[in-house]
Amino acid sequence: NSKMKLFTLTGNEPLAREIAEHIGIPLGKCTVNRFSDEEVQVNVEESVRGCDVFVIQPTSQPVNENLMELLIMIDALKRASANTINIVMPYYGYARQDRKSRAREPITAKLVANIIETAGANRVISLDLHAPQIQGFFDIPIDHLMGVPILSDYFLEHEGIDLEEVVIVSPDHGGVTRARRMADRLKAPIAIIDKRRPRPNVSEVMNIVGEIDGRTAIIIDDIIDTGGTIKTAAQALVDKGAKDVYACCTHPVLSGPAIERIQDSVIKELVVTNSIQLPEEKKIDKITELSVGELLAQAIVRVHEQESVSILFDQT
Amino acid sequence: NSKMKLFTLTGNEPLAREIAEHIGIPLGKCTVNRFSDEEVQVNVEESVRGCDVFVIQPTSQPVNENLMELLIMIDALKRASANTINIVMPYYGYARQDRKSRAREPITAKLVANIIETAGANRVISLDLHAPQIQGFFDIPIDHLMGVPILSDYFLEHEGIDLEEVVIVSPDHGGVTRARRMADRLKAPIAIIDKRRPRPNVSEVMNIVGEIDGRTAIIIDDIIDTGGTIKTAAQALVDKGAKDVYACCTHPVLSGPAIERIQDSVIKELVVTNSIQLPEEKKIDKITELSVGELLAQAIVRVHEQESVSILFDQT
Ligand SMILES: Nc1ncnc2c1ncn2[C@@H]1O[C@H](COP(=O)(O)O)[C@@H](O)[C@H]1O
Ligand SMILES: Nc1ncnc2c1ncn2[C@@H]1O[C@H](COP(=O)(O)O)[C@@H](O)[C@H]1O
Repeated sequence: NSKMKLFTLTGNEPLAREIAEHIGIPLGKCTVNRFSDEEVQVNVEESVRGCDVFVIQPTSQPVNENLMELLIMIDALKRASANTINIVMPYYGYARQDRKSRAREPITAKLVANIIETAGANRVISLDLHAPQIQGFFDIPIDHLMGVPILSDYFLEHEGIDLEEVVIVSPDHGGVTRARRMADRLKAPIAIIDKRRPRPNVSEVMNIVGEIDGRTAIIIDDIIDTGGTIKTAAQALVDKGAKDVYACCTHPVLSGPAIERIQDSVIKELVVTNSIQLPEEKKIDKITELSVGELLAQAIVRVHEQESVSILFDQT
Repeated sequence: NSKMKLFTLTGNEPLAREIAEHIGIPLGKCTVNRFSDEEVQVNVEESVRGCDVFVIQPTSQPVNENLMELLIMIDALKRASANTINIVMPYYGYARQDRKSRAREPITAKLVANIIETAGANRVISLDLHAPQIQGFFDIPIDHLMGVPILSDYFLEHEGIDLEEVVIVSPDHGGVTRARRMADRLKAPIAIIDKRRPRPNVSEVMNIVGEIDGRTAIIIDDIIDTGGTIKTAAQALVDKGAKDVYACCTHPVLSGPAIERIQDSVIKELVVTNSIQLPEEKKIDKITELSVGELLAQAIVRVHEQESVSILFDQT
């Protein structure tokens, strides 16, 4: 077994430090700077020859900067004779551009997979990919972890919630499998927000499939970006008689008007993970942050010891 | 012969419009936006099926944004069944990271070549690569144009300069070939600024090889970035008795303190090309901008007609 080394770039340093603490090894020395013209300068400051290197870098905002840092780091590690280069991407940027929904659209999620491989990565560890099909965009092994157990455990121990009354809500058709997984853990029923557009250019009709009246609704999504969907969904649930509305997601992208919308919404509490580092100004009272540090640390150790990682997520 | 289509991204739209005018075809319709979380959104708004597509995009500042726009555009064009995808990169970002000068450094110029190929480009047209060896980083054809003829022609017709008195100066050892090319066109002698560091951690000694006294010096470089080298070089030339000092370069990166330094320097005039778009605040009186639009237009037409491009630059 080769020696393990852990490096972080600038995407999420607090999470990387947490992972290193869980594993019990220090982060490797490397500096990531910008030249005067903003070109990325990466310096790996210690030998990685023959090592199994793990690089922690979510490609969250600023996505293009974080992605280029990652590619350049992979190039440097490859030329420095690392044994294997393992990329830990808790958040996979561009995951929503995963298909052509109109003519002449790019499939950027596939482009990102291709260029990570071209740079020289040997393996990827990610968390709640927007579509599980993105695993197939890679020709190298990819381990796909899930945030549902961490989010579910939080609600299972939540003092303010009567588990008998809970309903797990998927905010769209694409998220039903995820809602089902969470509902199994909470032994709760599910509901689906069933949006449809009767004809093009006619406004959407929002229908709710499932029992809501008098219940505590927990909406689960993978990504919350501008907060529009979640705010509208929460209101619709209250209108249908929900007692309280909670929301949770793995990836708090929270761009543009998101914080204001969540603040103004009927959502009582939004539970997220630290797959994406929240800047201070986004840490409002309504938001609870859970850590994926231990989960990622376990995955890294298992990959390094060539043990199956599926045990970490196959149990629903 | 397939139909030619020309597209621009956001790197240098004025140059792209100029190229389109020279060729006499309109720029293709495509929009380049950012989603709320700053992910790049590219929409090609007209058919490119079976076309020879030329995409104009220097990867100047902001380099990572411009590079990702380019990669995503290539992906979109490939999936839209373009016949060939030809990349016109008047400025090639990351060109200076073209070798390992210390242990564990990346070779980002090679990484960039690899990912442009992986995205699906068929050919590259570039201008004054920092090192001509970067041509060999590509496995697809690359046409390498030169700024020397355009810069030389300007000085040949310069009213304030007596050509009998000119000396062409290379600011370092790496630029001597370029200075020689310009000197041939101006029928002038050359000089070299010969910096050396006697021992590590001892400050550089600047020596000038060549006749300067009473002459009009024209310093030529490929890139002027922070302006430090050029400012010091110009002062050294004046100290050696130069009558006037002019400077020129193909790529005005002009980052950080560059404009202030040029303003404060003894340089009488700095001549640059529009390979990189100068923002308004950098357009100071001392700077003269020449256009590479016609040169690039000629190269594009010749590539499209499958004629040799070397005629555009092989004449020194
Ligand atoms: N960063 C982004 N922000 C918002 N929408 C996006 C982003 N990236 C891709 N999309 C669009 O989101 C849609 C896919 O989202 P979904 O239907 O939730 O899988 C596609 O139409 C994409 O064009
Ligand atoms: N964007 C940049 N700005 C300043 N220096 C750079 C940049 N990119 C690379 N370099 C460094 O410049 C040196 C190469 O420049 P040169 O000796 O002129 O070819 C190498 O030591 C690089 O590390």
